[in-house]
Amino acid sequence: MSSSPSEAPRTTGPGTSRTEAFSDGVFAIAITLLVLEIRVPEGDEGRLLNELLAIWPPYAAYAISFLTIGVMWLHHHHQMSFLATVDRGLLNRNLALLAMVGFLPFPTALLARYATATDSADQRAAVAAYGFSMILLSAAFALLWDSVKRRQELQTVDADSTSIRTSRNRSCMAIAWYAAATAVAVLAPWVSLAVFALIATAFATNGPSPRRRPPHIAARS
Amino acid sequence: MSSSPSEAPRTTGPGTSRTEAFSDGVFAIAITLLVLEIRVPEGDEGRLLNELLAIWPPYAAYAISFLTIGVMWLHHHHQMSFLATVDRGLLNRNLALLAMVGFLPFPTALLARYATATDSADQRAAVAAYGFSMILLSAAFALLWDSVKRRQELQTVDADSTSIRTSRNRSCMAIAWYAAATAVAVLAPWVSLAVFALIATAFATNGPSPRRRPPHIAARS
Amino acid sequence: MSSSPSEAPRTTGPGTSRTEAFSDGVFAIAITLLVLEIRVPEGDEGRLLNELLAIWPPYAAYAISFLTIGVMWLHHHHQMSFLATVDRGLLNRNLALLAMVGFLPFPTALLARYATATDSADQRAAVAAYGFSMILLSAAFALLWDSVKRRQELQTVDADSTSIRTSRNRSCMAIAWYAAATAVAVLAPWVSLAVFALIATAFATNGPSPRRRPPHIAARS
Amino acid sequence: MSSSPSEAPRTTGPGTSRTEAFSDGVFAIAITLLVLEIRVPEGDEGRLLNELLAIWPPYAAYAISFLTIGVMWLHHHHQMSFLATVDRGLLNRNLALLAMVGFLPFPTALLARYATATDSADQRAAVAAYGFSMILLSAAFALLWDSVKRRQELQTVDADSTSIRTSRNRSCMAIAWYAAATAVAVLAPWVSLAVFALIATAFATNGPSPRRRPPHIAARS
Repeated sequence: MSSSPSEAPRTTGPGTSRTEAFSDGVFAIAITLLVLEIRVPEGDEGRLLNELLAIWPPYAAYAISFLTIGVMWLHHHHQMSFLATVDRGLLNRNLALLAMVGFLPFPTALLARYATATDSADQRAAVAAYGFSMILLSAAFALLWDSVKRRQELQTVDADSTSIRTSRNRSCMAIAWYAAATAVAVLAPWVSLAVFALIATAFATNGPSPRRRPPHIAARS
Repeated sequence: MSSSPSEAPRTTGPGTSRTEAFSDGVFAIAITLLVLEIRVPEGDEGRLLNELLAIWPPYAAYAISFLTIGVMWLHHHHQMSFLATVDRGLLNRNLALLAMVGFLPFPTALLARYATATDSADQRAAVAAYGFSMILLSAAFALLWDSVKRRQELQTVDADSTSIRTSRNRSCMAIAWYAAATAVAVLAPWVSLAVFALIATAFATNGPSPRRRPPHIAARS
Repeated sequence: MSSSPSEAPRTTGPGTSRTEAFSDGVFAIAITLLVLEIRVPEGDEGRLLNELLAIWPPYAAYAISFLTIGVMWLHHHHQMSFLATVDRGLLNRNLALLAMVGFLPFPTALLARYATATDSADQRAAVAAYGFSMILLSAAFALLWDSVKRRQELQTVDADSTSIRTSRNRSCMAIAWYAAATAVAVLAPWVSLAVFALIATAFATNGPSPRRRPPHIAARS
Repeated sequence: MSSSPSEAPRTTGPGTSRTEAFSDGVFAIAITLLVLEIRVPEGDEGRLLNELLAIWPPYAAYAISFLTIGVMWLHHHHQMSFLATVDRGLLNRNLALLAMVGFLPFPTALLARYATATDSADQRAAVAAYGFSMILLSAAFALLWDSVKRRQELQTVDADSTSIRTSRNRSCMAIAWYAAATAVAVLAPWVSLAVFALIATAFATNGPSPRRRPPHIAARS
């Protein structure tokens, strides 16, 4: 577990393992609770098949939110790989991120319930509330990237500052994207939803590959 | 944690531990949420015992889904043991698998509610929806096996390619089995359910034993 | 991580870590889902305090089930410490145990709802159903102990066979205790509930201390 | 994993890893279940936006409870870092703490439902019940700190007894703070709620930084 003396100061901290375990737990639970918002249809007898095909908003809401949380987890994974240790400030910001991740089942349920509401004001309100939650989520994530960038004493010895800066900047741009998509919701809720799905897909396909994790592993090779 | 130099390139990757932890979380939560679909009976006074014996569809749905997710976890466990590291493509496919695992409580609830519906069209729709979810689940799993097989640069040094190919092929056959069982649901829902249970049982009893996990452990002995 | 050559064969297996992680997940989720059965009272205005004090059955059901699952986790922890590795047969039995652990929120909800039912037949049915679940749970646990005892090739090199046999026998006795308490439920449901609480308490206070876990740790000292 | 011979006795215990994993699971699940108490509004058509803005008690209850559980997790993290191993007594006290953590979604739901009740007696009862749960939670935590302090044979070799004593005393003071805030609830429920939020914030900002975790890591540097 240890390494050469010169690297020791950064590998003897409390590490990030329990923080990652707790975060993974919240991510995994929030992502799995999403399914509870898909309700079993209780309609007229003999109409179940039609109703199962008709209730696509819950499926779409599940898919978008699952993708968003899953991709966020992937990026969180990547983010933590730059850290050799954590401190209170970073843990507090991580907790703020988790509070937004854990909150996501609520706007998802809102979307599942009101995406096809006959009243268009309700429809727009649901999509806007979803978008607003996404803005807060991406803002919490950008704040965490900002801490990772500024707190060099917490980083692993080989943390690539260019890569960190790029990730931080990308996370700030995500806020702007979500804000734009949310503004669009007032006029065209469907366009807004499509953009939410696109943003998550873009982060899934252009996101970083998992990093090799030195130094405490590589250092001995 | 390290090993001989020649193996180092494959043991210094990010590893699969956090991916496994996150996947284990989703598997464990999805499997435990299944119980929420068994509702406390609210019938006439003094009839609780009869009702507890009468509501066997929720018990059966719980048992089949628990077995299916549990066996899927066992195979996922086995699957990951061939990997020394993961990359973005593999994580995306793993996320698709988890999305189907996390979705399973919904078709299970559907089955619990409609397996004994008086209207036979509803009954068939519920069983077919359950089967369709199983097809998607096994397809996601087969896609993941396919990645594990093709991405040799992610494998551990001792990964047995014959064993991987066998598992990949078996996972493709599972899709065919589930498709056949789902087609049967239109005519004979009970037969279909029995086949779902049989497939899971077959995978539990004929499945692979957990592999020894070299090289990073074995390499030092 | 490694040890002296003679011990190597038993320390290079797949280990028990992912099995423990998955099991811990199911235990932790089942124990935390119990709270969902305590419903927010929706009675007459101004009567909340009285109602909060009146709904003691859900609190009692929560307490007994939390204690039972918690103590079961503690014993599972102890049980796994005798194993250096797992195989398919053992994983299947572990899955059966987890299926019963994950099922427990249902009989707990039943108890919370019907423990003070005005109809005494309903009351007895709820307590008996709870007891029956406990019998199945303890039977699954005894079966797992039996596997641990018989499968010596899976044990750690220092596994104490006397200690394993004692634990196996105790787990068989637990079935008898739960069966007796369940039989009593037909005549005196309260006595039955008290016995369930007593059994869990007895296992908490007389249970094993966590074992030191050689050889892979101790072997290098 | 090992260290110099003189430290061996304290590093060959069962360790705290599985206890931490199980505890992390309960913390992560309880904190994520909180969102289930925020219900999707089902009001008059076209009024969704107004209702989303009106239902601030569930948001406030979510925020306060999330912060409380999150900070409690952080302190639990810190607390466990002083331990090299655990025994049955400590595990039982840890289980009592987890029972209170897992219970928290219920008083949170109570608060979300009744914080703006028209009947002020209901309002006070809900806030007082929430406060009472906080008293029990902090008492369970203080009892655990007391065990950590007294059980020196379980501590790591470098555990700082001054730091442990300080933490133990702070946890006792938290009981007093929660008791005072709960008493205030009878007269001024809002003041009481504000104090709950303040206590959690105080523990988040003045709490301990994560400790470096010797000896098994540091010992080799």
